[in-house]
Amino acid sequence: MQLLEERIRNSGKVFPGDVLKVDSFLNHQLDIELLDAIGAEIAARYGDCGVTKVLTSEASGIAVACFVARYLGCPALFAKKAKTSNISSNVWSAVAHSYTHNNDYTMVVSREYLGADDRVLLVDDFLANGCALRALTAICREAGAEVVGAGIAIEKAYQGGGDELRAEGLRIESMAKIASMDENDGITFC
Amino acid sequence: MQLLEERIRNSGKVFPGDVLKVDSFLNHQLDIELLDAIGAEIAARYGDCGVTKVLTSEASGIAVACFVARYLGCPALFAKKAKTSNISSNVWSAVAHSYTHNNDYTMVVSREYLGADDRVLLVDDFLANGCALRALTAICREAGAEVVGAGIAIEKAYQGGGDELRAEGLRIESMAKIASMDENDGITFC
Repeated sequence: MQLLEERIRNSGKVFPGDVLKVDSFLNHQLDIELLDAIGAEIAARYGDCGVTKVLTSEASGIAVACFVARYLGCPALFAKKAKTSNISSNVWSAVAHSYTHNNDYTMVVSREYLGADDRVLLVDDFLANGCALRALTAICREAGAEVVGAGIAIEKAYQGGGDELRAEGLRIESMAKIASMDENDGITFC
Repeated sequence: MQLLEERIRNSGKVFPGDVLKVDSFLNHQLDIELLDAIGAEIAARYGDCGVTKVLTSEASGIAVACFVARYLGCPALFAKKAKTSNISSNVWSAVAHSYTHNNDYTMVVSREYLGADDRVLLVDDFLANGCALRALTAICREAGAEVVGAGIAIEKAYQGGGDELRAEGLRIESMAKIASMDENDGITFC
């Protein structure tokens, strides 16, 4: 998606330690026009899949998910990060690992809002190693819901998480795929 | 706002301990059509205020803020909950108290995205005691930004936080104001 690639090139900042800061438009300050365009494009690619629910994880996936759901005409649902290890019995849950904060955390979704009748599109702002998508997929499996695929704003393709998941059969549509990035040489897209 | 009041009456659930669960449409599962209508209505009330930025706090304010910002044609910005007490020098910050989790936490906003030129509309899903709004207001004050007012989905008016802030001069527009609620007698709106 050219609009997003241009924006990453112009406003994204690469820092040592494989950090791409896009918080001027994607995950702190939100450029609504851009998010709307991303939502429209992801929705168009899954328009014929009978999606009943868009599932993301808090907090930075929420904005993208809202605009995808808007174009698909279905609810969005965000998995919450559990505050305690004491998970209630009325949720689906899965453990994910955060490389940013170097810890494990549990994502939970109320059983009331996800079930065997659902056809789910997973949405997130970033896909790198694939941990978050794996946890969301596990939650859907637990719920008996069918995952039709994933819609991602920015995939760090060189980290391999996306291709591993594709090899396992998950359809993934990423609006921008980064082949390599470096604080001196900048960003190359796939 | 009748649409929201009806939805709260039909789908909201009151639990002991002053808990109103609206996670079927507002802060877990998201009814996009309803959120869009709330966004349109809040934006209409502040349409002539020259808002340059919609400011909310993660995670449950993000969806409402997105739709308000969409109608105002400006960016949204969400304050992040700081992971550590070690706050970097390039953020505006303020401490808020969570009655839900009974702890203090620090909200941060990057200095890059909020400054003296900004006219800010604060947005949140809930207003009860007013702690979150006070923290967002403090962040704007620190940044030298002007707060034009607040747009709230649901105000628990009987908790008094909203009226205290109004008495201090803050304009607050709440789409649904709850006068009282009780798990047996249900919900009464102002």
